[in-house]
Amino acid sequence: MIRAGIVVTGTEVLTGRISDKNGPWVSEQLAAHGVEVAHILIVGDRPEDLEAALRFMAAEGMDLIVTSGGLGPTADDLTAEVVARFSGRELVLDEEMLEKIAEILRGFAKRFRLDEAAVLEANRKQAMVPAGSVALDPEGTAPGLVVPAGEQVVIVLPGPPRELQPMWTAALEAEPVREVLARSTPLRAYTLRMFGAPESEIAKSLREIEGDGVDLAAVEITTCLRKGEIEIDVRYRDEAAAVADKVREGLVGRHRRETFSLDGETIDTQVAALLRGHKLGLAESCSGGLLAARITDLPGASDYLNGSVVSYSNAAKAELLGVDPGLIEAKGAVSPEVAEAMAIGAMERFDADVAVSITGIAGPDGGSEEKPVGYVCFNARLGDGTVIARDPVIPGKRADVRERSALIGMHLLRNLLSGSEPPL
Amino acid sequence: MIRAGIVVTGTEVLTGRISDKNGPWVSEQLAAHGVEVAHILIVGDRPEDLEAALRFMAAEGMDLIVTSGGLGPTADDLTAEVVARFSGRELVLDEEMLEKIAEILRGFAKRFRLDEAAVLEANRKQAMVPAGSVALDPEGTAPGLVVPAGEQVVIVLPGPPRELQPMWTAALEAEPVREVLARSTPLRAYTLRMFGAPESEIAKSLREIEGDGVDLAAVEITTCLRKGEIEIDVRYRDEAAAVADKVREGLVGRHRRETFSLDGETIDTQVAALLRGHKLGLAESCSGGLLAARITDLPGASDYLNGSVVSYSNAAKAELLGVDPGLIEAKGAVSPEVAEAMAIGAMERFDADVAVSITGIAGPDGGSEEKPVGYVCFNARLGDGTVIARDPVIPGKRADVRERSALIGMHLLRNLLSGSEPPL
Repeated sequence: MIRAGIVVTGTEVLTGRISDKNGPWVSEQLAAHGVEVAHILIVGDRPEDLEAALRFMAAEGMDLIVTSGGLGPTADDLTAEVVARFSGRELVLDEEMLEKIAEILRGFAKRFRLDEAAVLEANRKQAMVPAGSVALDPEGTAPGLVVPAGEQVVIVLPGPPRELQPMWTAALEAEPVREVLARSTPLRAYTLRMFGAPESEIAKSLREIEGDGVDLAAVEITTCLRKGEIEIDVRYRDEAAAVADKVREGLVGRHRRETFSLDGETIDTQVAALLRGHKLGLAESCSGGLLAARITDLPGASDYLNGSVVSYSNAAKAELLGVDPGLIEAKGAVSPEVAEAMAIGAMERFDADVAVSITGIAGPDGGSEEKPVGYVCFNARLGDGTVIARDPVIPGKRADVRERSALIGMHLLRNLLSGSEPPL
Repeated sequence: MIRAGIVVTGTEVLTGRISDKNGPWVSEQLAAHGVEVAHILIVGDRPEDLEAALRFMAAEGMDLIVTSGGLGPTADDLTAEVVARFSGRELVLDEEMLEKIAEILRGFAKRFRLDEAAVLEANRKQAMVPAGSVALDPEGTAPGLVVPAGEQVVIVLPGPPRELQPMWTAALEAEPVREVLARSTPLRAYTLRMFGAPESEIAKSLREIEGDGVDLAAVEITTCLRKGEIEIDVRYRDEAAAVADKVREGLVGRHRRETFSLDGETIDTQVAALLRGHKLGLAESCSGGLLAARITDLPGASDYLNGSVVSYSNAAKAELLGVDPGLIEAKGAVSPEVAEAMAIGAMERFDADVAVSITGIAGPDGGSEEKPVGYVCFNARLGDGTVIARDPVIPGKRADVRERSALIGMHLLRNLLSGSEPPL
């Protein structure tokens, strides 16, 4: 098993001001190549701390060490220098890289009217690379590095994820990295997504599948509750493909209604595809625009979304959606009847053929014994009269109730448009 | 300077499936006590890796080591055992803790109809503590620990943030931790928030302030771009209070229009306070409900938000907001004129005395030379006719343009209601 360590540098990450995106991202990339990440170590901008981190990774026998950050032009960006020392290599000027950086910076200097000579001088530092290392073309102005260091290979990447991520591909193609990865067996993987099944039920199903004689130890199964859905990630080496198939069959067979994605596709992408050719109108109360925001998150939403009314007041429900004030009076603003009237109103006002309404009690106040905080009424309907109506009590706090409401709205849309049965 | 290291255990964190909240949180807490965190190390559930992490922290001379996770009842929860070995202490049964855990578990067993004896047996493990350590009362079922270990003191906390965070207070009160913290000087801190100033301008101002003879090295200044706003965090020891004051004066004096918060208060809280007694109507196009979602994020929003129309289609702008289709035809759906008509429509339809409209091109398609992707028109107005209208080009991709649009909407609301001048 090839093992790797990740060293994230940056005082802002260390102090908790910003959360690290690079460690988890690189870890997932390495896992896909069958490499096990044993340690992620976050250090500040002190060179001694970075050096200690590299020594620790070496002492622990990591085959690969990936660093992020500390490649900028200022004096406290010291990663290249520290890695050079760690690998016993001298820093030398890479003329070709200097020219590449100069090219990029001339553009910047012109655009922002900066002193070209000063900018170039400051960035000369970024073209200094450990002798015998592979320099990776900059995505911003900082080149990355692949540095052989005794038993280890160090991949040196910039801190901003928008620079680090595209540079990753080039790093994998560098000869020293290829040599390490050649000793690893790539993992295959699939991702199932479910909605409406508690995590404990998945655990129970896995025990049953194991009871049926499937050797679960041959595959790696991660079950993760993510924003109200369950994501089941199965990773396996080629020889365990048959086990992986049985796990999928066993899980999907037991949770047919709850499984909405066999290939990792998200509910957002599925709903967007199902909505093509339709016109959608929304009416939201407690979700406060979150369903509309989610639908419009994907480009091209204007092809199928006509609009949404966020009707927070009763007057707005009447004025903008045509809900009968008498109905609100009689049944309450949060009721299946008002949800129905809101959906019908949205369909009419937006001249749509699909409509979803949400009205509920997000809390913390406004709950009663009969209608507690978390009670939310949904009405999803097609122009032909097909309707799905639900009124669950959603657990959690205000933010949970609001987000879960928008998520349920997405799933009911999927069920409505695909003719499948909702798991709630 | 007292230094600390944090060891986060958990395979899910290491593989990138979930992002670590504990490292940054503990780091911020320690900073407030003047303790510098030098390393955050994430390891999986392998005991060798955890032990290596502890040895590394000791070798690096950390005074405090904080661990999170690995305190559960199952066999792979090994933190207490590994820390005991690291500290050279034997694991002994803490009878008092056993009784406390039993008390909690009897409740669980009853509620979920579990076999009480089996549950209690599994959790006996959680009452095993290193001899001579301080056990911290469980928030869930796992007690925390404070373990003196030679030159180090190890604070052992559970993984779930909702258990770790409340237990932190108890950990600080344990005698061995108090002794370490007594050697540290607590830091004072303030946070400024700005909107509309580029980060480079803040850097320039800091250089000027330094040029005026203020010793910036005496305080710790972190400037962080957070979701379109700049957060400036200044930490200092008592003896540098005068410097910290001069930094604040210098920054606020130079960026008066951009500074909206002197005490860390967020724009959301400020706008919520300003909206009391008003009635708000919104009309959103490219932001797709994000402004309404943001306004309704805080409890009590129904007191001042009447509603929002997310008018994605031109027909919806006409039908629901009363925008003249001829105006859309003549000026385009994304134009200051249509933004004005949308805001007026929202004010009328929602019977409001404050209205904000947003219409723009979020991309990736739909841009032109005259109106590129990112061009967004805002109109914020009061019932008395006071208006703030802006039409900036917002840089970035679709998600950036949408989120920044909602943020600008928040700031224009603040400017409108507080009578201050917008920095854009």
